[in-house]
Amino acid sequence: MRTISFARGVPAPECLPVEAIADCAKAAIERDGAATLLYGHTLGYEPLREWIATRHEVDVGRVVVTNGSLQAFHFVLSSFSGRVIVERPTYDRPRKLLGAFEEVSLDDEGLDPAELEPMLASGGPALLYTIPTFQNPTGVTLSEERRRRLAELAADGRLRILEDDPYGLVRFDGEPLPTLFELSAGRNVIYSSSFSKTIAPGLRVGYVIVPAELAKELEEVVASTYITPALVTQATVLEFLRRGSFEPNLERVCGLLRARRDAMLEGLESELTGHARWSRPEGGYFLWLELPDGTDAIELLSRATDVGVSFVPGPDFGGPPSSARLAFSFASPAEIEEGVSRLAALVPAATPVELR
Amino acid sequence: MRTISFARGVPAPECLPVEAIADCAKAAIERDGAATLLYGHTLGYEPLREWIATRHEVDVGRVVVTNGSLQAFHFVLSSFSGRVIVERPTYDRPRKLLGAFEEVSLDDEGLDPAELEPMLASGGPALLYTIPTFQNPTGVTLSEERRRRLAELAADGRLRILEDDPYGLVRFDGEPLPTLFELSAGRNVIYSSSFSKTIAPGLRVGYVIVPAELAKELEEVVASTYITPALVTQATVLEFLRRGSFEPNLERVCGLLRARRDAMLEGLESELTGHARWSRPEGGYFLWLELPDGTDAIELLSRATDVGVSFVPGPDFGGPPSSARLAFSFASPAEIEEGVSRLAALVPAATPVELR
Repeated sequence: MRTISFARGVPAPECLPVEAIADCAKAAIERDGAATLLYGHTLGYEPLREWIATRHEVDVGRVVVTNGSLQAFHFVLSSFSGRVIVERPTYDRPRKLLGAFEEVSLDDEGLDPAELEPMLASGGPALLYTIPTFQNPTGVTLSEERRRRLAELAADGRLRILEDDPYGLVRFDGEPLPTLFELSAGRNVIYSSSFSKTIAPGLRVGYVIVPAELAKELEEVVASTYITPALVTQATVLEFLRRGSFEPNLERVCGLLRARRDAMLEGLESELTGHARWSRPEGGYFLWLELPDGTDAIELLSRATDVGVSFVPGPDFGGPPSSARLAFSFASPAEIEEGVSRLAALVPAATPVELR
Repeated sequence: MRTISFARGVPAPECLPVEAIADCAKAAIERDGAATLLYGHTLGYEPLREWIATRHEVDVGRVVVTNGSLQAFHFVLSSFSGRVIVERPTYDRPRKLLGAFEEVSLDDEGLDPAELEPMLASGGPALLYTIPTFQNPTGVTLSEERRRRLAELAADGRLRILEDDPYGLVRFDGEPLPTLFELSAGRNVIYSSSFSKTIAPGLRVGYVIVPAELAKELEEVVASTYITPALVTQATVLEFLRRGSFEPNLERVCGLLRARRDAMLEGLESELTGHARWSRPEGGYFLWLELPDGTDAIELLSRATDVGVSFVPGPDFGGPPSSARLAFSFASPAEIEEGVSRLAALVPAATPVELR
């Protein structure tokens, strides 16, 4: 039995514009051979940095392109010595990397600034790591009101924010919200994104927009890490952008993912209504499942694996024992329907505590 | 006046097989779209790892492919807590990265094991970082006798060695020597190389061969650093290898570089005989210049820049004040002749202490 993966936070192969990327890689290397095949600027391929700068309306000197945005996270963290606050739950890698961190809890409207503010009153400089849109692992999006409040806290200098926004453009419904970076006019907000979800993760092209003086500082850190990031892949991304392939591809990808999300929501409605609670993301890759109180998601995973379904238990992200992250990005709608059905059969017919 | 660079340790653009790489990138992505464009194995693109494993006659589980070999250096260092011994002079990046290190001096036959051995008698576990072939910055190659002695020390467990071998295949004259890795049968020798000098540095494909248990340990370190290395570039390298383009390209590159080295040696002979001393590398990118005693290479660089020549002063690599690294990889033979002539005019007509 082939395992249906709700674990893998990656796009299905059919989301990847393989032929277009292949053509772009060839064209990019032919167009700019020496610049893409020699060592280049430590902060990234210049024409791509310029494209990103234009898009975000910042000076090009603030743009740092990296081999994926996790690498950017390392670079940014290397420059900061205060405490770090993360959402609970949040993306597991930062949790593992940080070692020590504080947590602010999350509800259906994202993290609560009212819980955050008292944490800032003492304890020294703090950096908030947040994924405001289609959060990993919950799929939750921070409301506009809360965004405005967070941006104020940053602009007032009470907080620094690392806004991780890999999923923002992968929206299926609803209206886009302003980023924290936009709302604070970049004051004390570092913005991170990538082309992993909008073109392909294997290209490993992420970026971060930082203050110009920090970008300068990072040059030496980057050079000492890997001399120069891979430029061929960055030039390939730029070629894809220049050809106007980005928007139509994104629309196609959003269509494919919307169908997957719909299949998962429909499956959950029909199988688990009354017995579980789940988020209803307007985009991204994930939704968050809260199972009946007393359910152990780790134990459930072991039983699910036996029937050919995988997911990531919530505790990996700092969530409660009865929670789970379900990725709808990888499996097909038919597989999702089947997988949810298999999974639901393993869930006790009890009511989660949040619904009582 | 265009500056003639003896500073840049990079190949001239005409060394880059631009068209072939462009074709390979396209073919590699088309051949294996999903595997190259999604996240892959943290230790690298599997088919390339297999090719490297076959070439070095090791199990594939020992091969770690990274975004350039400097990144591999970081990974290996992260696993080692003893003291590190480097050659004096040596590649400047490891000097900067290590912070603390001990040094063993270098002569025309490479580092001297007789100087190294007493250093091992006390002080705890030591890792030797060495570039045995066409060393950066000196161009010097470790003699076979000394290689055998170092390999014995490693095989006896008296020393661990990180053998950095990016230039080994870039040989213009003479016979290849066995690597320390080969001589010790890999016992306590970690071997590092890359495709930067044999295909193109901008692809950022380096690798390291480590014990299988260390490779396992590194999986988590790598995943926490950048999730997965860039696979498109690794697949491009593999396509280049599969097409049989590697050997003919290497021969072509060696021909281009040989002419540059010859131009530099001829220029030095005719302009500086009796006033300076220099190494005569049989391959690689660099030669080492020892100027008359009392010459300050940093001050000389400032005057050289005024007449349109650049190089890297020896002290950057831990060398004496009167030494300099000249790269012959980047400038054309005609530029090299002109650059050496400009540089020689600035050197005082005195005899270096080594020649007296």
